[in-house]
Amino acid sequence: TTFVAIVGHSARADDESYSELVRRVHELEAQVEKLETRDRVERFETARIDRTIDAIARDAERRSQLLLQSGATAGYRNGFFISSDDGNFRFHPSLLFQFRGVSNTNDTDSQSGFEVRRTRLRLDGHLFSPDLTYGLIWDTARQGGAVSLLDAWAAYRFAPDWQFKIGQFRESWFHEWDVAPQNQLTAERSLVAQEVGGNLTDRVQGLSLTYGGVGTNPIRVEVALHDGANSQNTDFRDNVGLTANAANFGVGGRFEYRIAGDWSSYADFSARENKQPLLVLGGGFDFTQRGDLDTTLATVDATFETATGWCLYASATGKFADTAQGQRRDYGFLAQAGYLLTPEWEAFARYDVLFPDGDEAGPSQYAEITVGVNRYLGPGGSAGHRAKITLDAGCLPDGAPSNLTGIGAIAGHERQFIIRAQFQLQI
Amino acid sequence: TTFVAIVGHSARADDESYSELVRRVHELEAQVEKLETRDRVERFETARIDRTIDAIARDAERRSQLLLQSGATAGYRNGFFISSDDGNFRFHPSLLFQFRGVSNTNDTDSQSGFEVRRTRLRLDGHLFSPDLTYGLIWDTARQGGAVSLLDAWAAYRFAPDWQFKIGQFRESWFHEWDVAPQNQLTAERSLVAQEVGGNLTDRVQGLSLTYGGVGTNPIRVEVALHDGANSQNTDFRDNVGLTANAANFGVGGRFEYRIAGDWSSYADFSARENKQPLLVLGGGFDFTQRGDLDTTLATVDATFETATGWCLYASATGKFADTAQGQRRDYGFLAQAGYLLTPEWEAFARYDVLFPDGDEAGPSQYAEITVGVNRYLGPGGSAGHRAKITLDAGCLPDGAPSNLTGIGAIAGHERQFIIRAQFQLQI
Amino acid sequence: TTFVAIVGHSARADDESYSELVRRVHELEAQVEKLETRDRVERFETARIDRTIDAIARDAERRSQLLLQSGATAGYRNGFFISSDDGNFRFHPSLLFQFRGVSNTNDTDSQSGFEVRRTRLRLDGHLFSPDLTYGLIWDTARQGGAVSLLDAWAAYRFAPDWQFKIGQFRESWFHEWDVAPQNQLTAERSLVAQEVGGNLTDRVQGLSLTYGGVGTNPIRVEVALHDGANSQNTDFRDNVGLTANAANFGVGGRFEYRIAGDWSSYADFSARENKQPLLVLGGGFDFTQRGDLDTTLATVDATFETATGWCLYASATGKFADTAQGQRRDYGFLAQAGYLLTPEWEAFARYDVLFPDGDEAGPSQYAEITVGVNRYLGPGGSAGHRAKITLDAGCLPDGAPSNLTGIGAIAGHERQFIIRAQFQLQI
Repeated sequence: TTFVAIVGHSARADDESYSELVRRVHELEAQVEKLETRDRVERFETARIDRTIDAIARDAERRSQLLLQSGATAGYRNGFFISSDDGNFRFHPSLLFQFRGVSNTNDTDSQSGFEVRRTRLRLDGHLFSPDLTYGLIWDTARQGGAVSLLDAWAAYRFAPDWQFKIGQFRESWFHEWDVAPQNQLTAERSLVAQEVGGNLTDRVQGLSLTYGGVGTNPIRVEVALHDGANSQNTDFRDNVGLTANAANFGVGGRFEYRIAGDWSSYADFSARENKQPLLVLGGGFDFTQRGDLDTTLATVDATFETATGWCLYASATGKFADTAQGQRRDYGFLAQAGYLLTPEWEAFARYDVLFPDGDEAGPSQYAEITVGVNRYLGPGGSAGHRAKITLDAGCLPDGAPSNLTGIGAIAGHERQFIIRAQFQLQI
Repeated sequence: TTFVAIVGHSARADDESYSELVRRVHELEAQVEKLETRDRVERFETARIDRTIDAIARDAERRSQLLLQSGATAGYRNGFFISSDDGNFRFHPSLLFQFRGVSNTNDTDSQSGFEVRRTRLRLDGHLFSPDLTYGLIWDTARQGGAVSLLDAWAAYRFAPDWQFKIGQFRESWFHEWDVAPQNQLTAERSLVAQEVGGNLTDRVQGLSLTYGGVGTNPIRVEVALHDGANSQNTDFRDNVGLTANAANFGVGGRFEYRIAGDWSSYADFSARENKQPLLVLGGGFDFTQRGDLDTTLATVDATFETATGWCLYASATGKFADTAQGQRRDYGFLAQAGYLLTPEWEAFARYDVLFPDGDEAGPSQYAEITVGVNRYLGPGGSAGHRAKITLDAGCLPDGAPSNLTGIGAIAGHERQFIIRAQFQLQI
Repeated sequence: TTFVAIVGHSARADDESYSELVRRVHELEAQVEKLETRDRVERFETARIDRTIDAIARDAERRSQLLLQSGATAGYRNGFFISSDDGNFRFHPSLLFQFRGVSNTNDTDSQSGFEVRRTRLRLDGHLFSPDLTYGLIWDTARQGGAVSLLDAWAAYRFAPDWQFKIGQFRESWFHEWDVAPQNQLTAERSLVAQEVGGNLTDRVQGLSLTYGGVGTNPIRVEVALHDGANSQNTDFRDNVGLTANAANFGVGGRFEYRIAGDWSSYADFSARENKQPLLVLGGGFDFTQRGDLDTTLATVDATFETATGWCLYASATGKFADTAQGQRRDYGFLAQAGYLLTPEWEAFARYDVLFPDGDEAGPSQYAEITVGVNRYLGPGGSAGHRAKITLDAGCLPDGAPSNLTGIGAIAGHERQFIIRAQFQLQI
């Protein structure tokens, strides 16, 4: 057995080296095989996963496409809208609601009550591209509630700084009128604006060309050719219209120079959300011919707002009108200031005075003094002009030259006090 | 060879136990290796799949975000709407269209024809949160077609059971008028409602405070302070308005006690879709001062509806008005019943009678008898008041005290028969 | 050792065949094991991936459901719309804006100015299904700007070729009036249309039944029963209305036979986007009774358009009206042609002439001659009638029988020249 053992041993030793080699081969083969397996599994799974990813991605794409093909785009972004999915068409319906309690008191009478000061439906947006814009406003008469057309225009921005507009629109010459009623500092525009300012032109029918007023351009100029001041809702004829002696034609314009700040801050009088101080100087005019009677309106004004809540505004305005008795000259001056006590509360004061032509009977001046507060609703006043309450108190020490019930004034030469509490919603 | 064979055999036996060991080792190694492979494959694939899932989920999230960021939410849910994606802003335009063929016949004359009884654009919804609601209705005059303002209000629900409202709105004191015209049982409200009821107050301008009327609260109370009955579309002044002698101010209110049922069943007169019986008792008043002439209106009423299709309603109303000749008292009484023959067909009958002040010339009473059917359109009448046809026939045995063409009545003391066939669409 | 070697050798050889067998077994075992591993991995991964796909699909489904449950469907597709996700409810608000500069010159006077010719809000769509359609148009008066109701109707297509309509709508009898104002070839409809054509019926209140006019049906017939020509915005009574002597009732109808082409080409006068030639012959009438005075209107007309840009239209119309002085007969004839120079530019000319009753004082005829161009905006004129500019010049050699300021004509027997430059936007 020893021999055998030896032989066996020899065989074992021999076998071992041999089987070691076999083992190594085995091991290598097995490992190779395993790698191959792993690789095949991997490639197989990769393919499956890729197909799966593809399928899911195609499915998601299809869903998105379905949603997009349906043109589904609508919602609320600072106003309700419907839009095409490429954004080239946009429809933006909005409502302005101003509800007001007003009290007017003089030595002999007191009138008070509620009124829906403004209810306006505005439909605006753009068509074919963001450069072709349109706007329509239907307004409601406080007295009687009749609905009638205020604005109807289309505008084309044919270059970044140039815009051409046609239709019926608010002529830009008097800044206090350019600022929309919902963006005022006080509950209502001034006596001066009513008697020698924007109220005399209101809407016109015609064409306008605007340069600048956007981005970093420090200049804004707008000039308009139209059917005459206050020519809204009249047909093409000259000798008919809302007034007995309707206008032949008119021209108007306004120039603004922005020394500091953003144009966006210039759309209201408040310093709300101003990131930097704003300083703008402006001036404008309107000339309207009625037969052989011409009326020229002219104004200059300055706006200064800080980034710390102060806002200041001042203007001087003149009206030079031919009458059958000769030319009359009326002047108006205005200064107002506001301060944001908190982002929610704003205090303001305004003084404006009208000097009628010296030859006119009656008081030599009509002053208006107004003080009040704005309460911007929402957390931190975030609703801004979209939801605010305005409370102001006014005094007309010289009375009012005519019934200006829109500002709470009643014709008469007695001193009158006006209190206005207004809730405003812009939808 | 035998030896060899033996040796060989011996070597084989020896080899086998050795190679068996080698085999076992091999097997273990291979299995371990395979397990490792499997594990690595698995971990590798797990990581890949996790990454894939992550990528797909992020992609889906991004798509959803894009869709949501665009604020895209609009469609139809019992009315067309545009909404912000968080639901805090909502715009709901709707139209009411009532088209009617009417015939009025008395012994000497017969008048018949079509009319667009009501065409109203209503824009309502909420802003900033579902608690701040708004509503606007522009109405169209049957005669002339002029569009004018009917409703313009904003309301804030400052607690679950409390709501404050301002603006121009329908004063709540007379249930038949509180029920919207599209939710009536008959084609038109009663003669009593026209002469001593809600028609006398219609819309008012002012403030109102409402408690309850929602959920399980069995009470609803609304009180309003306003410019006087029928003061819609007037400015703040007292001595002007739609009538020669406009109101100074008014107050009104209504109390309702729900003994059984859901408040939602109380919005119309029909028992349609009632899940349980409804029983509500109510009463209301309006007091309006016009100079030194006061008018007080007061009513009590009861509503009972079953879950099996029956609806019953009765009211008693009085008008106590100062006139230059002293106080006059007018009374009106009404009872009506309806029954849903099927979910689509409803039969109804109404009797109401007006007793003018005894000192007045003319008939001592004006009765109105009305019978008819409603056909609710859609499968199983599912369109409800949104699309229905109403056919009714009426008799005024004592004639009508004035031209009430809205209900088909023409002034005169002769007996008259009225047939009304109406198609209604609420869009 | 040799022996050993031999033995060893012999053992090796023997071993080799043995170990070869072992190896084979090993190999097979290993491969089987590997296959099992691979299979397990695969099955495991398959299950994981299936679960993952399921999860992702469920997630995507949930997102889609959320979006769909929200009913989110709105956007722009040839008009802004809000729709239910199943398409059964649709709301389509649109605006028509026509702004115009007009000049009218005769030997003694010249009038010129701008006007908002039309500003209309149109709300249409369908409810419950595409077969129940509705339409509302609120129009704005050029003079004064008052908003009033033009159209208010509902229609039901109860079979593919049959439609029933009720409400206030444009009666179909006179093709030039059937073609919407925004789809005309010239800036404004003809003098004939104003004096003996569609202007005399405008909107009516009543019912209409339409057969055909869709798809391949070569016939279109519409008949209407109504309150009389021009009965819009009147209540059911016969003896009141916009005119002193309002109508009792009226009937009208129109028959159209399409010999070639698509009905869609028939909605405007232009050959824009015609895929094939269009030839349609038509005729219509309206009969209206006013007390014992009847008026009958009747017309025949032919439309021919090529696929190469030519459009031709001609009509003959008569008005036969009872008056206190007996029956009068007025006739009108019209022919117009247009040609698309390019897809953007279209030239046109029109001649129409009115022959008043021979017994009437004044000219024996009133002719109108009009030439002009359309410029369709957008790339390749793709905006079509949605945005176009029309410039035309007209001559009324015999003057105009009445003030027809809507077409730029002023009453008078002198020759007058009219220039109209119009910008149109359909939103």
